[in-house]
Amino acid sequence: MSQTVDRARTDAGVHVDAWLATFQDALTARDAEAAAALFGADSFWRDLVAFTWNIKTVEGPAGVADMLRATLDTVDPTGFRVVEEPTEAGGVTDAWLEFETAVGRGSGHLRLKDGLAWTLLTTLDELKGHEEPTSDRRPRGAEHGAVRGRSTWLERREAEEAELGRTRQPYVVVVGGGQGGIALGARLRQLDVPTIIIDKHEKPGDAWRKRYKSLALHDPVWYDHLPYLDFPQNWPVFSPKDKIADWLQMYTTVMELNYWGSTTCTSARYDGERWEVVVERDGEEITLRPAQLVLATGVSGKPNVPSLPGRDQFAGDQHHSSAHPGPDAYKGRKAVVIGSNNSAHDICAALWEAGADVTMVQRSSTHIVRSDSLMDLGLGDLYSERALAAGVTTHKADTIFASLPYRIMHQFQKPVYDAIRERDADFYARLEKAGFELDYGDDDSGLFMKYLRRGSGYYIDVGASELVADGSIALARGAVRELTETEVVLVDGTRLEADLVVYATGYGSMNGWAADLISQEVADRVGKVWGLGSDTTKDPGPWEGEQRNMWKPTRQEALWFHGGNLHQSRYYSLYLALQLKARCENIPTPVYGLQEVHHTS
Amino acid sequence: MSQTVDRARTDAGVHVDAWLATFQDALTARDAEAAAALFGADSFWRDLVAFTWNIKTVEGPAGVADMLRATLDTVDPTGFRVVEEPTEAGGVTDAWLEFETAVGRGSGHLRLKDGLAWTLLTTLDELKGHEEPTSDRRPRGAEHGAVRGRSTWLERREAEEAELGRTRQPYVVVVGGGQGGIALGARLRQLDVPTIIIDKHEKPGDAWRKRYKSLALHDPVWYDHLPYLDFPQNWPVFSPKDKIADWLQMYTTVMELNYWGSTTCTSARYDGERWEVVVERDGEEITLRPAQLVLATGVSGKPNVPSLPGRDQFAGDQHHSSAHPGPDAYKGRKAVVIGSNNSAHDICAALWEAGADVTMVQRSSTHIVRSDSLMDLGLGDLYSERALAAGVTTHKADTIFASLPYRIMHQFQKPVYDAIRERDADFYARLEKAGFELDYGDDDSGLFMKYLRRGSGYYIDVGASELVADGSIALARGAVRELTETEVVLVDGTRLEADLVVYATGYGSMNGWAADLISQEVADRVGKVWGLGSDTTKDPGPWEGEQRNMWKPTRQEALWFHGGNLHQSRYYSLYLALQLKARCENIPTPVYGLQEVHHTS
Repeated sequence: MSQTVDRARTDAGVHVDAWLATFQDALTARDAEAAAALFGADSFWRDLVAFTWNIKTVEGPAGVADMLRATLDTVDPTGFRVVEEPTEAGGVTDAWLEFETAVGRGSGHLRLKDGLAWTLLTTLDELKGHEEPTSDRRPRGAEHGAVRGRSTWLERREAEEAELGRTRQPYVVVVGGGQGGIALGARLRQLDVPTIIIDKHEKPGDAWRKRYKSLALHDPVWYDHLPYLDFPQNWPVFSPKDKIADWLQMYTTVMELNYWGSTTCTSARYDGERWEVVVERDGEEITLRPAQLVLATGVSGKPNVPSLPGRDQFAGDQHHSSAHPGPDAYKGRKAVVIGSNNSAHDICAALWEAGADVTMVQRSSTHIVRSDSLMDLGLGDLYSERALAAGVTTHKADTIFASLPYRIMHQFQKPVYDAIRERDADFYARLEKAGFELDYGDDDSGLFMKYLRRGSGYYIDVGASELVADGSIALARGAVRELTETEVVLVDGTRLEADLVVYATGYGSMNGWAADLISQEVADRVGKVWGLGSDTTKDPGPWEGEQRNMWKPTRQEALWFHGGNLHQSRYYSLYLALQLKARCENIPTPVYGLQEVHHTS
Repeated sequence: MSQTVDRARTDAGVHVDAWLATFQDALTARDAEAAAALFGADSFWRDLVAFTWNIKTVEGPAGVADMLRATLDTVDPTGFRVVEEPTEAGGVTDAWLEFETAVGRGSGHLRLKDGLAWTLLTTLDELKGHEEPTSDRRPRGAEHGAVRGRSTWLERREAEEAELGRTRQPYVVVVGGGQGGIALGARLRQLDVPTIIIDKHEKPGDAWRKRYKSLALHDPVWYDHLPYLDFPQNWPVFSPKDKIADWLQMYTTVMELNYWGSTTCTSARYDGERWEVVVERDGEEITLRPAQLVLATGVSGKPNVPSLPGRDQFAGDQHHSSAHPGPDAYKGRKAVVIGSNNSAHDICAALWEAGADVTMVQRSSTHIVRSDSLMDLGLGDLYSERALAAGVTTHKADTIFASLPYRIMHQFQKPVYDAIRERDADFYARLEKAGFELDYGDDDSGLFMKYLRRGSGYYIDVGASELVADGSIALARGAVRELTETEVVLVDGTRLEADLVVYATGYGSMNGWAADLISQEVADRVGKVWGLGSDTTKDPGPWEGEQRNMWKPTRQEALWFHGGNLHQSRYYSLYLALQLKARCENIPTPVYGLQEVHHTS
């Protein structure tokens, strides 16, 4: 990069260059201790696959030294350098980096404080010799020249569809064709890793289409791009469910994914070499034998339905929120929605709009944040038109987000939610006056931390909270004791008449899918999926450093978990795809710091 | 724009600013002569809708003065200023401009030579109060708040589909749903102009899918983007037909176009207020009553089939190139392809590849240019990864291209083809040695000029020429006299045995569609569509200044023609859409310089 020579130098740039030179010298000398000495006492090195073939954060000089001792010889990192002029603010110097390893090219981000590294992010971006065919490496398409008997693009696509999974085995099978499976499938297609995505629904997007009709993305468009193909500039800020479904369907087609709709996985077994994945496709049983199996069945994939006494006696309709058909049949009828998170609020509001008599049962405190405030204060610096105008592209925003170690992320988040609480004080007061029990996370760090720690416990308010505040949606509090033929009965004796009960009671850990498809033994070996070990509500310790089991090797060889929101599906799909590609190409992938398992669910 | 104040000044910038200030003063003073005096003797002002509500080039001070006298009072142009620092090279200063009119905002490009304007391009970009909902004006999507009885995005889409053309009339009907109709439809959707696109094929993209299987775009991906949604970076350089078809289909869905497939237009009649467009949709006759009718049936839409003696006696297969099913049925059989342009070469090569015995009948000289050379020398500066790296975005490239007046465009083009002839001299020598009659356009200005003048007469070589050169594809020369039961007979008496005859004999003028759908009288009133009046082969004079009847008002009120390659469909669809939107909103649109009609076909 000629920039390092040509650019106008700043003090920040000189400092970073000096640090990087010393750092590179230590790496080249395989001197883990010297490299570690460049990190502050409270410091964090987060690596996505580049050094560790894992997603891993090590802490402090000791952590850095341990990681480098284990990895330096094989990784052979070289060429650490800045790609744009570093900046300094508030005593912290920020720098954007690139480097190479023995097998790939990487990039990263560095924060220096008092001359030492405070945070370092390193990511593997591509494997040498297996670069993605984009931009000036894009495929030619129609092949020029005259070749007898050659096939067309369509004939090759049709042949692939006919063969893959029949006469030729995929290297990867992805179970679950939502945004997670689709984004990963697109990455793997670009990396030329033969992959089949299976999904129980007929068409891509159906997992969105078939849910309650008022469903929409609560995350804004700038946060939601899929890999390779951004939403156009006229795309709505908050995608309605059917529109995002159409997008996913067309994306699957134009990205040429091998997507098996109307297909369910009935069992999967690993023999130490290949998986035996039995699927039922349109009534036909087919056995797939991939080397790698990815479960992308949804972080919020496996419904939790409480086994309440009296369920069998209840005469009305009852279903989990994920199976709620929408409000149209419930006009003028009594609906009780158990739960007070996103789905509960969405469903209550839609039922109220349709003219139902709605009661929400709040079982525990809930974090509420108004959408406008979240967009403005929580996301606006990274994902917005404002951010784009300031040069913060989606990839840059993703990288900034990834560069913040989970251990200290709550410190960055708390001031955001303090500001939101101040801005929306009247709103919160109205909700509390209506009897709604609020929280802002155990340590007041707000929505993102709740999402990352437990994936639940919040509602991004797009209108339902005012209905709670003004009593349009009635509020009941406490645990549910039982159902009768016509009522929901709470433990405090409150009796709620109901024609409909919706269990907006959340979802189980994704390793529950492993139990269903593979075995309880494998599910337990892998352990709980998602969460950080923050020792906060529903995220028991000890501290894990990274999200459990997501996008990285698990305790079950060749079994992977992928998913999350659209942001995570986009960003982490690259690192999971590179891990799979390396294995497909027999590139050695020694894993540093394979996670311990502390919880089985 | 603060740039004009803040930027570092260059001599070029100072000159342009001085010119613009004088120009703006003259416009403000409504002094057409003073403004015209700022133009050189050989100068050109090309206006796309901003001043003229037309697509119009005026020439020299007299032309400028005439146009300004007619338009200044209503247009009220203000605020002419540069948007980036001008540059100077070879005695020509280049500047990128913006300005406003009474009803809209515009931009443009200026070239100064010897202190006077040499070329000026002005384009209307948006209408005030009717800006497109993109970027920070993008729609919100899901509407926050609680509103009883509201509908979802899907319900509104479904209601629109059910109503439009039935209980509610579209403002525009577009006949033809290829890339042209689709691109225009997307623009009109963004401008909130109720539009129905009708197409005889079942699905968008079918016009590509159903053609011969080796068909691919001969233009590269950078040249081919549709509005609002670029092809992704992994899209092939030369799209195979089925892949571009999939893209068009998904584009139609995600852009929410009202696309009526399996629909044919049987007649259209204008009553001075609305059209009565009779269509047959899936067997049902429906009468649409739009205010505006756009024929987007393809510049290469209406097949020319020569009425040869003996056609009825011929015992083999015969069809126009547009109906050619591909080569698979003709292995080992004798094929005669009449014609020597793009389709003829494509079809001959595919037949040869499939093992047919192929003869091409060249009736007149043909311009051949190798794809690689065309990409490199002809398009590379504007449409390529190289151009993008140099900051030449698609829109900038389109504008540069549009800024070159047709009157002098051949002067810019000739050196390109001179360079290509030098580079590929061996290739051309081999072709001539095989008996192939070459040309480079009447004035050696090459492919683009042939395309703009006559839309025919060339082949972008992607491999077939080598087969002609080495005799794999046999070559016959001259006009066809007749067919017999088993032969094609040329006027020189040559007899070519044939199991298959393909008429790769081109297409008629688009006003032939107007004759079929409306009346011969209207077709004659509108006159020939396409071509510049260059007085070269198949483009009779007098000079028209712009392409006949394309994207601009015609001699038939409320009848428009749209189409061209993907580049033109993308670029000109904006200006046609703005003309339609203005009429839809009753914004006055006085047309300056409505074209004369010199040819009826």
